[in-house]
Amino acid sequence: MPGKIICTGLGPGDPDLISVRADRLIRTARHVAYFRKAGRAGQARRIVEGMLAPGVIEYPMEYPVTTELPVNSPAYRDALAGFYEDWANRLADLARTQDVVVLCEGDPFFYGSFMHLHARLQGRVEMEIVPGITGMTGCWNATGIPITWGDDVLTVLTGTMQEADLARHMQAADALVVMKTGRNLPKVRRALAATGRLEEAWLVERGTMPGQRVVRLAEAGYNDCPYFAIVLVHGQGRRPESGHGDEA
Amino acid sequence: MPGKIICTGLGPGDPDLISVRADRLIRTARHVAYFRKAGRAGQARRIVEGMLAPGVIEYPMEYPVTTELPVNSPAYRDALAGFYEDWANRLADLARTQDVVVLCEGDPFFYGSFMHLHARLQGRVEMEIVPGITGMTGCWNATGIPITWGDDVLTVLTGTMQEADLARHMQAADALVVMKTGRNLPKVRRALAATGRLEEAWLVERGTMPGQRVVRLAEAGYNDCPYFAIVLVHGQGRRPESGHGDEA
Ligand SMILES: C[S@@+](CC[C@H](N)C(=O)[O-])C[C@H]1O[C@@H](n2cnc3c(N)ncnc32)[C@H](O)[C@@H]1O
Ligand SMILES: C[S@@+](CC[C@H](N)C(=O)[O-])C[C@H]1O[C@@H](n2cnc3c(N)ncnc32)[C@H](O)[C@@H]1O
Repeated sequence: MPGKIICTGLGPGDPDLISVRADRLIRTARHVAYFRKAGRAGQARRIVEGMLAPGVIEYPMEYPVTTELPVNSPAYRDALAGFYEDWANRLADLARTQDVVVLCEGDPFFYGSFMHLHARLQGRVEMEIVPGITGMTGCWNATGIPITWGDDVLTVLTGTMQEADLARHMQAADALVVMKTGRNLPKVRRALAATGRLEEAWLVERGTMPGQRVVRLAEAGYNDCPYFAIVLVHGQGRRPESGHGDEA
Repeated sequence: MPGKIICTGLGPGDPDLISVRADRLIRTARHVAYFRKAGRAGQARRIVEGMLAPGVIEYPMEYPVTTELPVNSPAYRDALAGFYEDWANRLADLARTQDVVVLCEGDPFFYGSFMHLHARLQGRVEMEIVPGITGMTGCWNATGIPITWGDDVLTVLTGTMQEADLARHMQAADALVVMKTGRNLPKVRRALAATGRLEEAWLVERGTMPGQRVVRLAEAGYNDCPYFAIVLVHGQGRRPESGHGDEA
């Protein structure tokens, strides 16, 4: 009987927000793999602290060292591709005889690093993905305000986009989520200001994690934030609810 | 000691995808409220079948009967507002002495009916919201294909929007989610065809629930679908990943 690779979404950070299914798989796993930056504990591993079974074997998948190469250079891209290729092979080998649980922050299929392994493993080994609560869902809940009503349009952007593209999409949508804020915060702030939306924007750092911080972006008063940070604009309800005639 | 109102997100439908926290709250609740259409079991109630404690008291909140009035008429809207007002009062009364658990499909703050109670109860009673996996997250996982990569822009639309607005947003985004498809499916299909995106679109009915159906929309071959249905277009990755230098 060959094993399989099971990628479990961990949700936004609070271990209590892991799904019942992922919780059970993580607690009984014998082989657990997760991404981290070299020399760091790794956020995914931190979320499951205290949950792993005694005797578990851990596989920290450490991103190639980043300081010597510009992240957009072909050399860096090659290093990253080699890294994913290498781990895809190692996990496939392991899964010939064992189940391997891969930990993934949020939902694995929403801007997740696991997707790079998934693409390389497709057809080679059995895989199962366990959905998770996305980071943005944890973050809008942390503000205590609903994100979308009625016919609101929600657009999800990444802070890594060009400023003009950010502004264009910010203008067109009702509710907004900006992922991958980090060092891109000044650019995100300028694009929001240019489209008249800065006053409505919130910054959520480490949503549902220890050290969570929820502030109005205009009052945040600085230009940098941690990697785990999301900028949000709540929808106001594009028009009144139009009934529930089809509700099951 | 006054009680509080706890709204638990149930996730997309599979009870195994409820969070550990919501699962615990639901299994130990003494008072459980949920929305449903009169005469139906109600999807939220169906998800927790077999989980409720013996002796639990149930409060089905039945939407006002819809057949006599057009759903966009002022009379219907008044009936709906009165319905929310009435239940807000009843739950507030109950929460003076007891905890009340409200069940909500998906995530409560993402196009959720509970938001109408939440707005009316704000400041009157203690409330706690437990985030859930959104229906769309369950649906894109059901297709087995990641929804967003790199700098992909994801836009969430509702099938209740005007056709021209749907088309405009469909053109601008990479990945797409269309909620509230139901009877609006023909309109959604026309807007996708007009923007050249019909071939990439998937229809997911009852994602993660019994009776789940995942098909390419172009091959779905009919013009109606159940209330629990979402149309998806996956992002293709707007540009290669730009490294993980900031990863925690
Ligand atoms: C590579 S993406 C991974 C997203 C993840 N798969 C998900 O479903 O949320 C990483 C980005 O997610 C966002 N993020 C995820 N969880 C977060 C949290 N708890 N608080 C703030 N931001 C979060 C940050 O913007 C971060 O830069
Ligand atoms: C009033 S909204 C509620 C959304 C919910 N709060 C959430 O987080 O997904 C109802 C719409 O959600 C979508 N939906 C929710 N769960 C679904 C599922 N499991 N499968 C398909 N569609 C779903 C359908 O489009 C439906 O019309």
